[in-house]
Amino acid sequence: MAMMNRQFKLAKRPMGMVKREDFDYAQTPVPEPNDGEFVVRNLYISLDPAMRGWMNEGKSYVPPVGIGEVMRAGALGKVTASKHPNFKVGDHVVGIFGVQDYALSNGKGVTKIDPKLGTLPVYLGTLGMPGMTAYFGLLEIGKPKPGETVVVSGAAGAVGQVVGQIAKIKGCRVIGIAGGPEKCNHVVKELGFDACIDYKAGDLKKALKEHCPKGVDVYFDNVGGDILDTVLTQLAMRARIIICGAISQYNNTTPVKGPSNYMSLLVNRASMTGMVVFDWADRYPEAIREMAKWLLEGKLRTFEDIESGLENFPEILLKLFKGENTGKLVLKVADA
Amino acid sequence: MAMMNRQFKLAKRPMGMVKREDFDYAQTPVPEPNDGEFVVRNLYISLDPAMRGWMNEGKSYVPPVGIGEVMRAGALGKVTASKHPNFKVGDHVVGIFGVQDYALSNGKGVTKIDPKLGTLPVYLGTLGMPGMTAYFGLLEIGKPKPGETVVVSGAAGAVGQVVGQIAKIKGCRVIGIAGGPEKCNHVVKELGFDACIDYKAGDLKKALKEHCPKGVDVYFDNVGGDILDTVLTQLAMRARIIICGAISQYNNTTPVKGPSNYMSLLVNRASMTGMVVFDWADRYPEAIREMAKWLLEGKLRTFEDIESGLENFPEILLKLFKGENTGKLVLKVADA
Repeated sequence: MAMMNRQFKLAKRPMGMVKREDFDYAQTPVPEPNDGEFVVRNLYISLDPAMRGWMNEGKSYVPPVGIGEVMRAGALGKVTASKHPNFKVGDHVVGIFGVQDYALSNGKGVTKIDPKLGTLPVYLGTLGMPGMTAYFGLLEIGKPKPGETVVVSGAAGAVGQVVGQIAKIKGCRVIGIAGGPEKCNHVVKELGFDACIDYKAGDLKKALKEHCPKGVDVYFDNVGGDILDTVLTQLAMRARIIICGAISQYNNTTPVKGPSNYMSLLVNRASMTGMVVFDWADRYPEAIREMAKWLLEGKLRTFEDIESGLENFPEILLKLFKGENTGKLVLKVADA
Repeated sequence: MAMMNRQFKLAKRPMGMVKREDFDYAQTPVPEPNDGEFVVRNLYISLDPAMRGWMNEGKSYVPPVGIGEVMRAGALGKVTASKHPNFKVGDHVVGIFGVQDYALSNGKGVTKIDPKLGTLPVYLGTLGMPGMTAYFGLLEIGKPKPGETVVVSGAAGAVGQVVGQIAKIKGCRVIGIAGGPEKCNHVVKELGFDACIDYKAGDLKKALKEHCPKGVDVYFDNVGGDILDTVLTQLAMRARIIICGAISQYNNTTPVKGPSNYMSLLVNRASMTGMVVFDWADRYPEAIREMAKWLLEGKLRTFEDIESGLENFPEILLKLFKGENTGKLVLKVADA
């Protein structure tokens, strides 16, 4: 009997918060590679806020996942069968392998990684897309200068944790924004931010004023909504806002809330710039090299929130939107 | 008997649309200069959308006009009395002389102009703040490249008319947005834009798609509100939005409408940057030189909407917010 491949396929476009019923849970035979192809056994699947956007109809920076298609996801796995000259059985690889046990690949967009260099899930987090996003977004768009004040929302998340630590390495004063005292404690104690504001605790504007007396020079926005709107009121002159995401708005059933304080951009000669990490793909190796060095030197710490069981995918994904993860959320689907 | 100076003083902070009752109309004796001062007889007063913001309480790029103070306004006038070494009777000067017949000045922020070089009101428009705003905003923030598509709102206004013509000079395709067929006709026929969309006529999104098939590379925003939000849906990759003003929102009694489509900045790796023209003050002479040359060569045309009578100030100011002016709105208060 053929080995089976468990898969989550997109069944319909979610309305509001994602539900298990938005997916079909299917079992199909594990694929066989043709010439130029190989099969990957997924070990860790990356769960990212961007996945919510991929489920929607309509133009974005990548096409939406089609109805009936395996749900798109980044993953790390091991090659189990290969007819591809550059990938051999046993290789560890990272790619867009989807929410399933086994993926067929022609090698496009796939990177081989050396499992000796770090624990595997780090390649989906700090040394993967979220880390690249933090690195290039902060340094290339934010351009922080020593002594400047950098504010990061989603500070305990996969991107936020790296943004803040890089800003510290670059000599900035760093204030996180996160939900709840536990996360805030983590951000200050474990990640070394100068402070972290619990946005659920009350007056964000007042707290920002207190922690950023000279205003916000760089704001790295992962959340959008009211938090973005409030940070806009506290900008320093020539502030730079990096629009990386808007997780607070992804499950809206009503229109996105635009930042009504955007005229602060005029008053403060500030800018708001959107980013998609793929644009720096040719420079990933440079960033990985530098960040791996920081990790080795202990200047950069990385946290992953590892859950288990492919079958639990829909519920685990929701942790992101409920703000329940600390560090990079990863779904472990098999032992390495 | 002393000559009298008619003045409009701010009586209260307007709620919504500005009304005559928001001002006190006073008559005081014409001031006498002390050492280091001179007196200016205003000839033309500049009416600008920014004046509405100056009437509000609260932090902005300049302090608000105080209650009881003469309403702030740029103006062009002639020196009638002087105890200042650098300004003599008969000099033509531009400065922030306020909504009044006569102003006392110590010369700070005042520029002498040569009345032989152009008709006087042009120094309040195309060769004044609006022209500087257009020049530096478009060229320094928008950075338009030949062949790119530039969209300008408030296209028939003081800033918009210059933005679009400079973009044409720089080899761009230029689409204006204005209210009503007359203004749109003016923008295309007199200013030479490639097209002008009448936003009052219906489906702005559809019209933008039609006129900007490759998307909008540069958007110079003078109006904010729904127009900004709609242009956001039509951005080209790496588009630049210049936030110069938001006239649609200045008389709001409800909160400003934030651009709910701002996530288009992310999808398109685009930026939105605020500007205040004063930041380029040291480069005004360069811009004036270049624009005066374009005017002489007939590459740049300039239109002014000249109304008369200081006593009519509140009603004439409203033309701006009702969108009734074509070209730079100027109030003539005395013969040159």
